[in-house]
Parts: sequence; structure tokens; C-alpha cells
Amino acid sequence: MNFERENIGRMQGYLSGEQPQDSDTIKLNTNENPYPPSPRVEAALRAISSDSLRRYPPPTADDFRDLAAARHGVLRDNIIATRGGDELLRLVLTTFVDPGETIVVTDPTYSLYPVLAQIQDCRIVSVPLLDDWSLPDDFADVANRVGAKLVLVVNPHAPTGSLTGAPALRQIAGRIDGLLLLDEAYADFVDPQLRYDSMEVLRHCDNVISLRTLSKGFSLAGLRFGYGIGASALIQPMLTKTRDSYNLDYISQQLARAALTDMAYAGETWRKVRASRETLGKSLSDIGLEVHPSQTNFLLARVPTGFPDARSLYAGLKERGVLVRYFPEPRLADKLRITVGTDQENERLLAALRLITDR
Amino acid sequence: MNFERENIGRMQGYLSGEQPQDSDTIKLNTNENPYPPSPRVEAALRAISSDSLRRYPPPTADDFRDLAAARHGVLRDNIIATRGGDELLRLVLTTFVDPGETIVVTDPTYSLYPVLAQIQDCRIVSVPLLDDWSLPDDFADVANRVGAKLVLVVNPHAPTGSLTGAPALRQIAGRIDGLLLLDEAYADFVDPQLRYDSMEVLRHCDNVISLRTLSKGFSLAGLRFGYGIGASALIQPMLTKTRDSYNLDYISQQLARAALTDMAYAGETWRKVRASRETLGKSLSDIGLEVHPSQTNFLLARVPTGFPDARSLYAGLKERGVLVRYFPEPRLADKLRITVGTDQENERLLAALRLITDR
Repeated sequence: MNFERENIGRMQGYLSGEQPQDSDTIKLNTNENPYPPSPRVEAALRAISSDSLRRYPPPTADDFRDLAAARHGVLRDNIIATRGGDELLRLVLTTFVDPGETIVVTDPTYSLYPVLAQIQDCRIVSVPLLDDWSLPDDFADVANRVGAKLVLVVNPHAPTGSLTGAPALRQIAGRIDGLLLLDEAYADFVDPQLRYDSMEVLRHCDNVISLRTLSKGFSLAGLRFGYGIGASALIQPMLTKTRDSYNLDYISQQLARAALTDMAYAGETWRKVRASRETLGKSLSDIGLEVHPSQTNFLLARVPTGFPDARSLYAGLKERGVLVRYFPEPRLADKLRITVGTDQENERLLAALRLITDR
Repeated sequence: MNFERENIGRMQGYLSGEQPQDSDTIKLNTNENPYPPSPRVEAALRAISSDSLRRYPPPTADDFRDLAAARHGVLRDNIIATRGGDELLRLVLTTFVDPGETIVVTDPTYSLYPVLAQIQDCRIVSVPLLDDWSLPDDFADVANRVGAKLVLVVNPHAPTGSLTGAPALRQIAGRIDGLLLLDEAYADFVDPQLRYDSMEVLRHCDNVISLRTLSKGFSLAGLRFGYGIGASALIQPMLTKTRDSYNLDYISQQLARAALTDMAYAGETWRKVRASRETLGKSLSDIGLEVHPSQTNFLLARVPTGFPDARSLYAGLKERGVLVRYFPEPRLADKLRITVGTDQENERLLAALRLITDR
């Protein structure tokens, strides 16, 4: 007998990027930070005794919440700590979106969103981005027209790297009838000269939640730690009702705190990634790929005609020990998403690419 | 504006037991193992470098699943590793129970179940246990009559400590139309002479999932690690569809594996807990409390008339630095649930109790 719910029965699960556990592969496929975490994280790890695991951990990670609140100039009540950004996304759906209600996303977007919508048995409406990957002017109106309870916007955007400014986001948040979730997984890599700060949106709109993660900006993808920022009325129900009662283990709470106390170190990795993003983008263009400007730690590069197609390039790179991401979707199938690695990794990518394309 | 779903708006969250982070309090309130985790866990912790946190962890913790499968004589496909038992409970509801469908639990039971039911917007039906805390003979029939999609049975039972034998469980599983979740959080503490093994039930019934946790038996409540065992048709949808894509961080996977490789150490803590359970039970009886026989690492003790009432005893013990659990519920309000501590902790509890009750 099949016990699955009907919506679960008909869905496909999320397919995560390939995760080879060997250390030879150059992994430019899942947007990990190429630099190790802060030495303070190592020190915090060394300071932990396994004896401290005997007891339940602090249930709501308040020490971490205080640090995150200070970072963004908000209060502890405006912060929920979660097991990666993924847990926050799930909690937002569980807490605010009834089965049968509508979620609006952009097309393209993070491929986890439709999976989460299916689990919650929601309707999902995709609004195509414009040719330059920006949001259409009538985005908020479309969301209202289809009755969106929740709008999910990745900013800066994955998989394109585009950034929507805070004023535009504030306008959208002010116009939509539902909630706006800003998935800022890559916000740490935005050029500081752009002075992008989503807190500007949150300060004025009580229907906005910002998602942050330590996976990329703090080199801690293996730790599974993220957080949400928003009005207390949005954060509290997730914190006190729908969150698994002890969602964060003791060790990860200690290490996440250590990471957030060393903003100078993290900032230096961001600076290096931005510099390498610039160099890598130029080199890819020199080879002949069309690179979209990016405010993230990855580049979306179109493979023009005259080259082996994007899928073949992906396969050829993989053969040579370099993993990048290929999406077999309408507007992405002629492109590769390439994580910015260390300069050495980027050089190995470029060398392999030159070899395959004969440029 | 309030964005919460109606079912979330009207619910109360789960209240976890008090978790003072100081080390002076004698914590006999949340059923933690009084002994530290295996030295192999410490060694595994020492062997981890924070550099390994840069990358995403193995998504389904297959190395751990292999170990757990070997422990129970099943296959990897029969195991899902989860963030504590709580995540498994949530996944079972998300995957198998539609909003509006019915869940059957016993009364009393683990107080998280009604919370999870409200989050999933399910109906919950409580079937009272008999006076000796055993399951009524018509339990399966009642479950079918109310149309239970899922039946949740804690075994050995919390908060009473009673054990239902595998043959009785097999009979229930064979008769119900829905799924049976055996919450075996405390199974490690069952007297081996009873030869209780739920695998006997699982081998014959494809509608049963067993929940196990490393929180109690392996002294790792702070690690948040558990697993589910069941027919592949039940495990796979949770593993590949409804689970958060990277639910288990890298460190906890390593430490959980280390714990499971040292069954001799864990077994020795179980033996000590069983011995102390015996001694503590006798001493509590000597003081005049009525102690229900327990196959777990806690004792449910009734406070007879002539004593300060249970709530006052709880408060008096707390004043003296000893935390136990008090449930203000109809059949539990005259009782205390006391975790079995080390002999030294138990002695401090008993001394405080004698002082308060003047025995």
C-alpha cells in the first residue's frame, strides 16, 4: 500500500549539485566560498568538549541572535536562527501559506522553491524576468492579480547574479498584498560601493523577511546555519510555533557565533571573491563567452554559437576535474553557472576551457 | 496585518523542559543521559578541521545510514538520518498526513505530538491509556473507527516508562488501516532480559516506522541526531522529497558515526542507568512515593496524600537546585517525572526530597 499524500506522490525531490567528497575536484558548481572559515571558527571548534553535547542545546540560539541583530541594527526579536537558509524557507511556507494558496517566484529562480511549494501543496506562479534578468515593472501587480500570499525574490539573483536595488524592492513590498521573502544568500558579495542594504526595505515594510546564510559569505556550507530577519510579528510565530523545538545543535551555535564575531576576516574573503569575479569574468569574455555582470560569488556565462554547446562544455570540464553547474532549462540551457574560486582554481577552469574550446 | 495561517494563529508552541546552562543545577527534567558520550565521539571531534565546513555536507548521511542499518539488521534504504527524532516526526506528518486527516495518540503522550498536528492542521484523537498505563485492547479498532492515517505510540512510553511488547505492537500494526510510528526514543534503556526488539514488528509489517535518537542512549542531546527505520517505500519519500536538502551538518554526521561504532560504551551507560533506576526507584518508594515500573531512563512517581502536592515538591526541589518535570495535566498533576541521574545526582535528589517531605 502507498501511504504518501497525493501532492508528495506526484512530486520530484530537490536535486542538489554534485558533491564529490574527494579533494582533487575543482568544485565551482555549488557556490561555496573558496576560502576557509575564520580562524576564530577553528578556535571555537577546538574549545568544545564532547561532554557539552550530553545536554540539550539552547533552544532558540539567543546568543547568536543577539550577534546577528547587532550586525543588522535590529533587535533579537527580529531574528530567527535556522538550519541553513533552507529551514527558514520551509518555515515561511509552513507558517504563512495555506495549502492551495499561491506563491509567486521569478523565472528563473532557485530550483528549491517549486519543491517547497509542492510539499506545502501550494500553487506556484512564475513571472519571467526581462531579457536583462531584471524584474518586470508590473511584478507587484502580477503578484496581486494571482493572489500571491508569498513572493520569493532571490537578491542578488541566482542563477544570474543580477542585483535589484533596495528602492525597487521597497516599492514592490509596499504594493503587494502578501509577504515578500528576500533570499539574500549572496548579499555578502555585493560591491560595497553600491551601498545595497535590504534593512532599508525592512525598516519601512512589515511584510518583508530577509534570508541570510553563513554557507557562502562565511565559508560554512557544511555547518548548516542561517537566519531570518523581519518584523517581530513575522519572526515570532516561526520561532515559537513552527520551528523544530531544538533546531540547532550546540556545536553549530558556537561556531556560528565565532564566525559572526570576525567580520573583518569574512569581509576580506568577500573582497577577494569580488576581485577574482572581475578577473574571471574578463578571462571568460576573452575566451568568447558572454558573461552577465554579477553581484554574487558566481558568474552566469552564455556559450555562443560556434562553441561546443553548454552541456558539452559542462561535460568536458567535468572530465578534466572541474565541476560547474548546467541547468537544462529553456533560458539557461545555453549557459553555465560558474562559482568564483580561488585564482588558482579559476586558472585551472580557464585552462580546461581553452583546451576544450581550442581558444 | 497578521499573515499567520489560521491554524498557526490559534496554536501554542511546544514548551521544552527548562534548560539552565549553568553546571550547578542537577538536571533530572529532560531525560538526558547522565554519562558523557563515548571517547570515540571526543576523538572524532578532535579530528575535524573547520576547513571541512567550507563545503556542503553529504546530503543524506549515507555513511551513518550504513552503520545504523548494520545495527538493526536492515538495509541502507530502510534508514533515514534526521536532526533528532523531532525532524523525523515532522517528516512523517508532512509526507503521509494530509491537513484535515486524523492522527491517533495515547493519553498521556509526548506533548510535542499535538503541536505537530496543529502545524500540519490535522485532527488529533487521544485514546486514554488504562489505569496501569497499558494500551487498551481495542486501541487498533478505535484508531480505525476515527479514520487514523497515523498512529503515534511512544514505546517504552513517556512519561510513564511502561513497555508494550513486540507481539502486541505487531497485532496493532496488522490491524490498523494507517501507519504506526513507534517512538522508541527510550528503547536503549529497556532491560535486555525482556528481549524487546521492534525489528520483529517491522519485519512483518510494512506500515511501521521506528524512531530512534542519539539524544538519550548515546548522550548526544546537544548534537541533534536521530534516525528512522522502516520499509523503503516509507523511508524513500521522506529521504528524497520532504527532507530539507542538507538536513545534517558535517560535524554531526562524523560524531554520530563515532557514537554508533562504540556500542560497548553506550551499552555500559545503559547498564548503569538501569541499575540506578532500580536503586532510585526503591529509595523513592522508601520515602513514600508510588513509583511506576520503568523501562526508560526516568521514573514516574505519584505523590500520595499526606505529602506536599507534586507541584510544591517540584518547586521545592527546584529551589534546592534539583530540576524534575511536573506536568499540570489531569492524570499527571499528582506525579513527578524524574530522570535517572548518576548515583551522586540521585542521592542529592533524594536528600532534598527527604528534607522537603520530612521523611
